[in-house]
This record gives sequence, C-alpha cells and structure tokens, in this order.
Amino acid sequence: MQITILGGGGFLGRKLAARLAQDGALGDEAITGLTLFDLQAPPAMEAPFPVRCLGGDVADPAQVAAAIPAGTRVVVHLAAVVSAQAEADYDLGLKVNLHGTLAVIEACRRLSAAPRVVFTSSVASFGGGQEARLEDDARQVPGNSYGAEKAAAELLLQDASRRGMLDAVSIRLPTVIVRPGRPNKAASSFVSAILREPLLGLSTELPVPEEFAVWICSPRRAIDWFLHAMTMDTAPLGPDRGINPPGRSATVGLMLSALESVAGPEARALVKHAPDPAIEAIVGGWPASFTAERARRLLGFSEQESLEEIIQGFIEDDLAATRAERGL
Amino acid sequence: MQITILGGGGFLGRKLAARLAQDGALGDEAITGLTLFDLQAPPAMEAPFPVRCLGGDVADPAQVAAAIPAGTRVVVHLAAVVSAQAEADYDLGLKVNLHGTLAVIEACRRLSAAPRVVFTSSVASFGGGQEARLEDDARQVPGNSYGAEKAAAELLLQDASRRGMLDAVSIRLPTVIVRPGRPNKAASSFVSAILREPLLGLSTELPVPEEFAVWICSPRRAIDWFLHAMTMDTAPLGPDRGINPPGRSATVGLMLSALESVAGPEARALVKHAPDPAIEAIVGGWPASFTAERARRLLGFSEQESLEEIIQGFIEDDLAATRAERGL
Repeated sequence: MQITILGGGGFLGRKLAARLAQDGALGDEAITGLTLFDLQAPPAMEAPFPVRCLGGDVADPAQVAAAIPAGTRVVVHLAAVVSAQAEADYDLGLKVNLHGTLAVIEACRRLSAAPRVVFTSSVASFGGGQEARLEDDARQVPGNSYGAEKAAAELLLQDASRRGMLDAVSIRLPTVIVRPGRPNKAASSFVSAILREPLLGLSTELPVPEEFAVWICSPRRAIDWFLHAMTMDTAPLGPDRGINPPGRSATVGLMLSALESVAGPEARALVKHAPDPAIEAIVGGWPASFTAERARRLLGFSEQESLEEIIQGFIEDDLAATRAERGL
Repeated sequence: MQITILGGGGFLGRKLAARLAQDGALGDEAITGLTLFDLQAPPAMEAPFPVRCLGGDVADPAQVAAAIPAGTRVVVHLAAVVSAQAEADYDLGLKVNLHGTLAVIEACRRLSAAPRVVFTSSVASFGGGQEARLEDDARQVPGNSYGAEKAAAELLLQDASRRGMLDAVSIRLPTVIVRPGRPNKAASSFVSAILREPLLGLSTELPVPEEFAVWICSPRRAIDWFLHAMTMDTAPLGPDRGINPPGRSATVGLMLSALESVAGPEARALVKHAPDPAIEAIVGGWPASFTAERARRLLGFSEQESLEEIIQGFIEDDLAATRAERGL
C-alpha cells in the first residue's frame, strides 16, 4: 500500500510517519512506499519500505501530483498555514489552505482508483466561543480566515467524495497539546507552551484567564485518529464527511493543576499571567466543547487520556527531543 | 452611486438592471453608473445614467477587476453555472462558482471602500430533501457540486466581510418561478416549464409526482430581495452573512391547480407525467421548506405572493417577451 503525507515534515506528520515505519503495515496490509511532502523536503527516515522525501508548494498542482503518484491508496493532507499566520497573511492562507486542497483533489481524481484522503480540519472552523457545547450537526460559522478556509476545503472534499474522485474523512482537530519544539504561529500556541516550557524549566506567559476552557487532544490520540481514519469504513459517514472527534474540554486552570501534580508546584510557578486580548479574541471565538457523539458511538474514534496522562505522554515521547532541538 | 451586476445578462440580472434604470436611484441615492458583465456582453439599455456592457470570464481576476472599477459601491454577483451543468462539468462549475467568487473578492478588496456584495447562493447548498423544514442555523450539507461551490463561496465572502474587504449579503435563492424564455440546464428547470409552457400553449413534461414539494419564489420577489440586500444595514446579520429568504413551499399539484385557476383546465392538461429519476434525484435532495425566521422577523425581507399572483406576474411581465423570443 502506497501512502502520501502532505505536511509530512510537521509535528504530526513526522509522528505519523514514524508510527507507519514502526508498524510496517496499515490495517492488515503491508506498506509498500511512503511519500513525505512539505515546504522543505522532510529529512530521510529509516523504514521497512521505501520513503521519498519531497519539498514543494502544496498549492502547485504539478508538485502535488508528483507527491501523489499512480497507485497511491491513502493521502493524509496535513499541510496548512496555521490560524494566526492565516489571519496575518490572507493571501498565503488562501493559497495553502484552499488552493492547496484543490490541488490535492486534482491529483487524486487523476488516479485510477479513488484514494482515501484524511484531511485535518479544525475546531477553528466553528464559532460559539466559551459557552458553546456543539452538536455534531452544528453549522460552521468561522470567526477567522483559517477556519473559513478549512470549512470551505471540507465542502470541496465532501463533494469530490460524492463524485467518487476520492474518499475523504475530515477530522476537525482540537487544539493539540503538548506540542514539542518551539512556540509557533498558531493563536493556540500558548496552550502547549504553558505545559511544555515549565517542563523545560523555562518561564512562559498565559494570555487568558485560568477559567478559560479549550477543546484539546493529545498527539498520541491524534495519531490514533489518523490511523483509524486511514482505514475506516466511510459508509456510516453518509454525505457529511466532517467529524468532530472526541477531544476533551479543559480549563487552563485544570491543565496547570495537572502540570503541578506531574511536575510539582515549581513547574506551575513558571507560568505568568500576561493577558493578551488579541490571542484571547481568536481562541476565545472557538467553541470550548463538542458532544462528539457521532465519532464516539458510531465511528469508533478513541477517547482522550486524562490531562496527567497527556503531560506524561509528552515527557515520554518528546521532552528529550525538544530539549536537544532547542539546545537546553 | 456606482453599481456592478455580474451575470447582468441573465434573467434576474436583466430584470434588476431594468428596475434600477426605472428607479434611477438606490435607496435615496442617485445611481451614477451601472456596469453589466456577463459571458457575452449584455445588450445596451436605456437608463438615466451611463451603462457599460462588458463581456468576459468571471473567473479571470483582471476582467472582473475591470467590471468593478474604482468607486463601485454595490456589486451584485449573480454569475453562476447552474446545478445540472455544474454536475455535468465539474471543472466549469468549480471555475465559475468558486474561482469566480474569489475573483470578485480580489477585485473588491482593491477598492478604497469596501463595497456591498449581494451574492446569490442557493437552496441547493442544503441537503434534507422532501421531509425537511430547515431552521436558520441548519448546517449546509450539499448533495451536488453546485451547492458545494455556493456554500464554499459563502464562507469566503463571509470571511472577506469580517476582514472588511467587502460587506456581503448571501441570499440562498429558492427555485425561481416562473422563469421566462426557454428551459435551461438547471435541474429545477421543469418547475417553471410546467407553468410557462402551458401558458404558451405548449405541452411539457413533469418529471416528479404531483405531491413533490419545492421551495420557490417569484422573480418579482427575488428582485425586491436584491434591492433590500443592496442597501440594508448588515449589522444585525452578525458573523453569518447567509440568509434563507422567505420563499414558499408548494407542491407541484398546488402549482398546477393555480395554473388551472388562472388559465383553465386546458392549460393544466398540457402537463404530461414523465418520471425522470435523474432530475428527481437532484431536486429531491434539496430541502422543500425553511422556517426563514431571521429574514422575516429580523431582516425585513418581503413575503411571497400567492401562487396565482406569481403566475399572473409572469403573464404581465414576461409572457409577451417569451413568445416573441421563441417566435411563437
């Protein structure tokens, strides 16, 4: 089975690639080749199958077609310009998040068999804010360009699925914590930083109040969801290919308590309150909770770990690498 | 006030242009110029202000920019590839319905003041079918490419409005009856044909059962809605720029009874049953009813006439011209 990961050099793309290399198979089928595509060619990796690493522009149909060669069975489309960046640079967001998805559709429809496409949409494609607990049939009224582009891309992938050009599963990812590495340009970057930085012994700023709630998931669970979406039966989805996966709604205060229980009060003390209305305006527009009934009961997406387990998972999987990457 | 109508050569575009020429003003402001843009340059028209008639491709940003010159205050974007045609030619539908809207956004953001953009979205952007009576916050799960492109375009216009690039009002038009002229490539073409053709003394085919219900509006009311949307205060819309206007849910049987009451049993007898599962599959996926509470109570969109008045309106406004156009 041939697989392509677009955005294969990013945080989740690398984790997914490593997991595929470790398993050597997807479901009960051996993986025969993997293509990793990103703006910069991802570094070569060890795997029991050939791995091609390509650098290119996801909005360029020819380059995307080269990354999705004949025989590709699964495309995982993670390539995106994140929320604060898409808000700051409208043209770039539109290019990558909308035209990039159009290029993926174009490449997939040229294949002789419609491939599974796993697309990462986002909680940011909804409005609703702190008070919201959204049902599965909630209307997407995004309050930011990133979310609007993701919701539009979902519609186009859904239509391409209906037409038999591809077979899409769009997972609206919660805010993923704990992200390794450095802070990034996502407006939600702080949600990881308030856990990661103290675990590195560094102080960090909290731009929202402690009662602020966020819909979150762990990297481990995100990878489990991708693997499930890569092989699941899509018939039960019906015409609506968008899925609100079973994340967890947690206040920042609860996250900091979990940090304290894992790493002690000195870790928590490294988090300083520094209100930032611009950040709160973006992240505060995203819904803080979803029922996620369809994903839970009908579609078999796995549940979240506890906050303590999520922090422990970061320590086990990513703390040493983050320390090394940042020269700490 | 400078106004541009994209799709200004079409059925509703021509009616709107004629109305603007008759009024000479929009709200309490004199119209100082009108640009009509369509695939073929619309014919010249009499008006108390200069009228430019341009032919071009709505997906070409340079041509659209030329149609929306400096100083344009209102853009009415009616240019579209209709439902059955977008279903038959995926690339054409995507080009006109999605990339065309992107070109409109691009042209509008170059203006020194954000223009009002009135966009015609469609009932076809929803699923639900015959049993549905959709609330204003219903999720758009289109079952056809036309509807998917319209829903995606709505999201992009909404985001551009939030960013202050333009100020959009997206009206999800019901099936407009009675359309003048000839049958067209819309899957819903028959809904007009079963009234228009008998009034011309011609027989026609009904591809669905008489109990089949359709969400309809009259051309007169559609023009009233456009005029309202061109000048209304958009603040009450909030972030959601999509409007389900107050159409009417009517069965085909009720339409034929109205035809009989206006034009006699011999008119109704010209409608022959000829089931067409392909047509029923497309139109049958659209919702047959909406509550349309927001448009009615909050936004001041006008109510539909009775079916008899709608048929009478066609006789007064369009029957002679249709007869002449078709050499009858």
